[in-house]
Amino acid sequence: MSPVESTPRSDAPGTQFLAEIHEQPDALLRLLAHEKTIARAAQLAVERDVRLIRLVGHGSSDNAASFGVYAFGLLPRWTAMRDAITLTVHYDTPLDMTGSAVIGLSQSGRTPDVVEYVARARAAGALTIAVTNDPVSELAAAAETAIPLAAEPELAVAATKTYVNTLAVLALLAGHLAGRGPEVSNGIRRAAEQLAEVLPSLERAAAGMALPFAYTGRMFVIGRGVEFATAREIALKLLETCRIAAEPLTATDLAHGPVAALDPLFPVWAIASPDATLAPVQEAAARARAMGATLVASGTAAAELEGASYALPVPAPSPQLLSPLLSVVPGQLFAWALARARGLDADAPHGLAKVTLAR
Amino acid sequence: MSPVESTPRSDAPGTQFLAEIHEQPDALLRLLAHEKTIARAAQLAVERDVRLIRLVGHGSSDNAASFGVYAFGLLPRWTAMRDAITLTVHYDTPLDMTGSAVIGLSQSGRTPDVVEYVARARAAGALTIAVTNDPVSELAAAAETAIPLAAEPELAVAATKTYVNTLAVLALLAGHLAGRGPEVSNGIRRAAEQLAEVLPSLERAAAGMALPFAYTGRMFVIGRGVEFATAREIALKLLETCRIAAEPLTATDLAHGPVAALDPLFPVWAIASPDATLAPVQEAAARARAMGATLVASGTAAAELEGASYALPVPAPSPQLLSPLLSVVPGQLFAWALARARGLDADAPHGLAKVTLAR
Repeated sequence: MSPVESTPRSDAPGTQFLAEIHEQPDALLRLLAHEKTIARAAQLAVERDVRLIRLVGHGSSDNAASFGVYAFGLLPRWTAMRDAITLTVHYDTPLDMTGSAVIGLSQSGRTPDVVEYVARARAAGALTIAVTNDPVSELAAAAETAIPLAAEPELAVAATKTYVNTLAVLALLAGHLAGRGPEVSNGIRRAAEQLAEVLPSLERAAAGMALPFAYTGRMFVIGRGVEFATAREIALKLLETCRIAAEPLTATDLAHGPVAALDPLFPVWAIASPDATLAPVQEAAARARAMGATLVASGTAAAELEGASYALPVPAPSPQLLSPLLSVVPGQLFAWALARARGLDADAPHGLAKVTLAR
Repeated sequence: MSPVESTPRSDAPGTQFLAEIHEQPDALLRLLAHEKTIARAAQLAVERDVRLIRLVGHGSSDNAASFGVYAFGLLPRWTAMRDAITLTVHYDTPLDMTGSAVIGLSQSGRTPDVVEYVARARAAGALTIAVTNDPVSELAAAAETAIPLAAEPELAVAATKTYVNTLAVLALLAGHLAGRGPEVSNGIRRAAEQLAEVLPSLERAAAGMALPFAYTGRMFVIGRGVEFATAREIALKLLETCRIAAEPLTATDLAHGPVAALDPLFPVWAIASPDATLAPVQEAAARARAMGATLVASGTAAAELEGASYALPVPAPSPQLLSPLLSVVPGQLFAWALARARGLDADAPHGLAKVTLAR
């Protein structure tokens, strides 16, 4: 490997992926210019007496939905769920959508069953909100109101800035529902600054970790609460760019079976936050270490995990709910560096297209 | 390997696991003796004007909850969700539980955060229903009403008969809510007979497949709709008894990234049902084949998947919603046979205890 370069070369595989990772602070700031649109969507949800939020998306969008469950639960204390798209779209089941707000998540705005779900939910009386990077997409047209991701075009197949901006949209929606919009938008602005500051050193640290993992075929990625979304998204990056069979697990689910698969050659990436989920994540990390597993400690409370062979900590934002905006980035950078070490092109993984039209 | 024996030897590793797989038809019939208790719980949910079902559990219980989402959606057309336990138990978030029924799922009835969630939900006004194999457990005591799994003691660490009986409880609850209780209970009785008939030949077929997978370290297991629960449960069996990094994916989510990890040495187990999800599962299987992946076709519509190197079909029950009661069994038997081929003890995987007290 050549020494790590922080300026991407335009000819190298993974250049676009790395460039978009670095664009994330700017993308977050661009999104904040649309805060009024988000506040209006929140107002609409209050006026319609919404009692249940149904989040729908696939891939990175569905991972962001895992964060949404906590954002809506922790800020306005509303119940949110990742809904079963198949039930509505494929099984054609008419559910009572009164009192529901549907948030359709799709970077491209073209994911067929998400568009179809939103159209059906709207016809059944739900408030429908599209969150997409393409404000003139089918999804934006199908929904009653649309929130732009404002991430500018994302060209690498693996999502980065659109994922982080989707988290930010959900946090802002939840914040405005709770009357805490300014606190959340200020937190996002500060998180963007924190991210810009640490990106160069994080890139170096992640690149330095790539070589020992060059022959790793499997990994668990562990998070809980707000960081379960991060575990899912990092696992997906490793799957799609590095061909690692990386499986996301909650700290507790690790103990309910999967821990038996671990050994020293089966690494575990754990994401720790300094909140009520820290103790379960520490226990899960200790359980993995007891099986001999090689541990990577990440997240804002990475230092609280004992026995880690590698650490990729990130600074803590405020409110702490925003930590997934930062904690996913070491995973993105590690995926970029590992793909490079393996001779894979993170910009265009074999077998994938940027817009997924699979049913 | 010695020739396959259908009578387990008491001294061999995996004997208990195999014996409990074979007990499943009887366990299903035993459960049917408790149909009145289940019908009463359904009646209670109607009387309380329940609008949302919140399912909580870990491991196999959480996998069964994935089935519950479809059972309640397809039969009474009620919205059901796998709720975020962490939000309530760890983050201490008081959610509005009015109009909610909570179904707490735990074989042992001792999973700490499930017990805690149910206690809090009950205090917050939810109708609480425990589904457990131990009718005098903490979970049964914490809930307003309890439904026994009636599976008799399960001694192997990896769940089998308690998983299938949990599916049956959820199907019966959904059936009674929809006024279709007798249809579902007759279907379960017939499914138990179908299962008893095919178990010997399924065991031979699964055992014959073990050797080629003896060195496989990773696998995707694909299902959609009612069979996503089956994909999750088979992946968990392979993780805990065979140490395979097996990841469950919906047919659609495969296309949203993970397909890029596939190659001829990365097998895919696909579960097909003859319903509206067949076409997406066929497309996912074709996508996996296009990447060269070795395909195992399973489920009641296994014959509809082209290009499979191995097939483990099961008979179709009626109503078709019950197919997961049968389609999980080839995965259980394959896990047993593969563990044996690898010299692992499926009865007591290293690092696991039967009752998981992890937070």
